[in-house]
Amino acid sequence: METMKKRRSIRQYTSEDIPNELLNDLLSTASRASNTGNMQLYSVVVTRDAENKQRLAPAHFNQPMVTSAPVVLTFCADINRFRIWAENRKAQAGFDNFQTFMAATIDSMLFAEAFAEAAEEKGLGLCYLGTTTYNAKPIIEALNLPKGVVPIVTITVGHPQEPLPAQCERLPLDAIVHEEKYQDYTPEAIDRLYKGKEESDSNKEFVRANKKETLAQVFTEIRYTKANNEHFSAVFLQVLKDQGFLK
Amino acid sequence: METMKKRRSIRQYTSEDIPNELLNDLLSTASRASNTGNMQLYSVVVTRDAENKQRLAPAHFNQPMVTSAPVVLTFCADINRFRIWAENRKAQAGFDNFQTFMAATIDSMLFAEAFAEAAEEKGLGLCYLGTTTYNAKPIIEALNLPKGVVPIVTITVGHPQEPLPAQCERLPLDAIVHEEKYQDYTPEAIDRLYKGKEESDSNKEFVRANKKETLAQVFTEIRYTKANNEHFSAVFLQVLKDQGFLK
Repeated sequence: METMKKRRSIRQYTSEDIPNELLNDLLSTASRASNTGNMQLYSVVVTRDAENKQRLAPAHFNQPMVTSAPVVLTFCADINRFRIWAENRKAQAGFDNFQTFMAATIDSMLFAEAFAEAAEEKGLGLCYLGTTTYNAKPIIEALNLPKGVVPIVTITVGHPQEPLPAQCERLPLDAIVHEEKYQDYTPEAIDRLYKGKEESDSNKEFVRANKKETLAQVFTEIRYTKANNEHFSAVFLQVLKDQGFLK
Repeated sequence: METMKKRRSIRQYTSEDIPNELLNDLLSTASRASNTGNMQLYSVVVTRDAENKQRLAPAHFNQPMVTSAPVVLTFCADINRFRIWAENRKAQAGFDNFQTFMAATIDSMLFAEAFAEAAEEKGLGLCYLGTTTYNAKPIIEALNLPKGVVPIVTITVGHPQEPLPAQCERLPLDAIVHEEKYQDYTPEAIDRLYKGKEESDSNKEFVRANKKETLAQVFTEIRYTKANNEHFSAVFLQVLKDQGFLK
């Protein structure tokens, strides 16, 4: 719990490698996480080779962690292994659909987060890359992912470089927790819940540097624009079709 | 790590309640998990009230944990709060699309699993319910979820009833880990990787009780049939349209 409370994303790593034995112990521990019907509808691809990291880097918009971290992990929703097992056992898996994609996505995310918790408990630092669902197609090509497999998130992991970055703020708990029923947000509630976030020095600087009037505008007009979101939605839905999860 | 290695889903709970202070500490700790751009695109609805649990139960096919656990948590992908914040700050969130649904789903799953790890470290036991994406619509109605909010998983949580259930098997690590590139599975690899699973006493009993020839058939012909998967895919895609994530 104490490690969890102090956690922050780590984007700079020392040159120290992660022994295979430790990595495997962490992944094995993480595989104890809950999953759908104990089918384990996920896989993870481990990238350590420098050339292979270079190949992945553009898919993550060349964020430097991809090439500087000793280990890059790509967590995938995977029905391929289960389907082959079934076919070899006189069974036919009807898993090429959106509901099973959701189950496999959930499985792979619980597995990824369990890995993250275990790794951080062992003193490692990591960063999730949200670029994975934007650029799933080049990642599929770089990692030879067959039909039935879709990359969902990537984690870069290594030993944290000191000094550690400051911990980011979070919304107060009553912003995210609803008792019994969902209580929609009044303008007054929004003011109260977002006050700390809006008044943090780093976010104020973020607004200034981006020449915007409000912090929300930095998100909606620069970081996560409607045009980009819609473009990458169409691209990802096509990936789901190509990988066999949507008709 | 040791707690994680020993983990198992807990479906039977003592009558002991979970104090609000502990629950909030666990949820607050879990909110330290990584999330997309620190937008925290998730919410959780806490159900303690007996009548409200009764209302949720049918959506979970009346699995007894829903009414017997002291606390039921519904983890939701949520862009509603962010959108209201943006609207109140001269910004327009273009988040009504599939890519943002994926980001919010990932955020909510990392949050849920971080909660699970923290709760188990404190000696609580829990069970994930995969029924949430099957019956998202009645859950949306029961919890008053507005547009922009979709329930993804439910966790029932309480103090474990002794004796604890046996730990389920997992596939060996090399079934789920690929070094550098995805290595597709030969029939020989499948035989080796699924041997332990197929030969476990409980799975053998599972095959016998269901009058099937192979374990895979129990999954594909009884538990996760093509017809059911396709039915619930159509239903869930409609929910995504209704909640504003698909055109």
